[in-house]
Amino acid sequence: MNYYALPIANLIEQFSKLPGIGRKTAQRLAFYILEMEPLEVEKLAASITDAKEKVHYCSQCCNLTDDDLCHICKDDRRDQSIICVVEGARDIIAMERTKEFNGLYHVLHGVISPMKNIGPDEIRIKELLNRVYNGQVEEVILAINPTVEGEATALYIAKLLKPLEIKTTRIAHGIPVGGDLEYFDEVTLSKAMENRREL
Amino acid sequence: MNYYALPIANLIEQFSKLPGIGRKTAQRLAFYILEMEPLEVEKLAASITDAKEKVHYCSQCCNLTDDDLCHICKDDRRDQSIICVVEGARDIIAMERTKEFNGLYHVLHGVISPMKNIGPDEIRIKELLNRVYNGQVEEVILAINPTVEGEATALYIAKLLKPLEIKTTRIAHGIPVGGDLEYFDEVTLSKAMENRREL
Repeated sequence: MNYYALPIANLIEQFSKLPGIGRKTAQRLAFYILEMEPLEVEKLAASITDAKEKVHYCSQCCNLTDDDLCHICKDDRRDQSIICVVEGARDIIAMERTKEFNGLYHVLHGVISPMKNIGPDEIRIKELLNRVYNGQVEEVILAINPTVEGEATALYIAKLLKPLEIKTTRIAHGIPVGGDLEYFDEVTLSKAMENRREL
Repeated sequence: MNYYALPIANLIEQFSKLPGIGRKTAQRLAFYILEMEPLEVEKLAASITDAKEKVHYCSQCCNLTDDDLCHICKDDRRDQSIICVVEGARDIIAMERTKEFNGLYHVLHGVISPMKNIGPDEIRIKELLNRVYNGQVEEVILAINPTVEGEATALYIAKLLKPLEIKTTRIAHGIPVGGDLEYFDEVTLSKAMENRREL
């Protein structure tokens, strides 16, 4: 038995497809939208189609942008000789928040994962190599997440970059600041020990 | 400094206006939408505008519907002589799930709340009275939530119905099934004691 009018049931169904939105939350959101001002609802729907239509990959670094080049690639105050390679566009946001890095980025949009049928050609590795071949790049920082697939992808890229004699680095693994030794797994702990530095 | 392209920032802002969606969740949803199939995104946006356009109040009970009468009012197997009064359309869903009630509903769309400037005319009390005046109603069950405003609204409606000599009842207050005495407040407990029944 369906308790909802069809357009409501449909709205709830669409919402529950989004990540982290369960049946209950979808229902709450749907009823909230039905009580919203019509103009606000229009703005919400338009922002969804608008973002999807206008946003695409930056032609240089594959970051998300509504322009040909993203705002980072366009910024000529940034150091063109250093590229930080990340898995997703969201990682750029996280990195930019540190306000420490002033080079350019490259977004892979995934990692190599034979389990999910994602090979090197499915992610933006070729585009990275093209940038390195053609540009004035001196260092590539592999800031890919330290998962099994991430490590494999980092090693794969490092191997490809080796013959080009470009400095290739990997972000450090270890205990996060404020972290407590007892809560981290052995792999993290042994990485932290292995990468210890003299004070 | 804005880290996002404008359409993305806009989408995040629209999402964070929804209840229970914070900045982080809004960001996660926005990036998820940018990775979705275009057709799926269209369906999501359309379901929002569609629901808002097509869904309105049932001309009899003020439930949400895309028709003139909601599916409950249209169902002639339901008992037309008993009306269950609820605060919101969501309460109908909760009530229907019990599969115990076979009468009709009336949705007030709020409760009287002088603090929020909501008087009796701002909620659908007049529509309820009209139904009672004109119909074959024999009992009105006030299933309004047992909050301070809910109680006041229930008393107000009961007073209006008194001269019509219609049976007016209030749902029971007490300890919910599976509840534990020690976790409930004194008011709930004393209500539970007051409304005790002989076994």
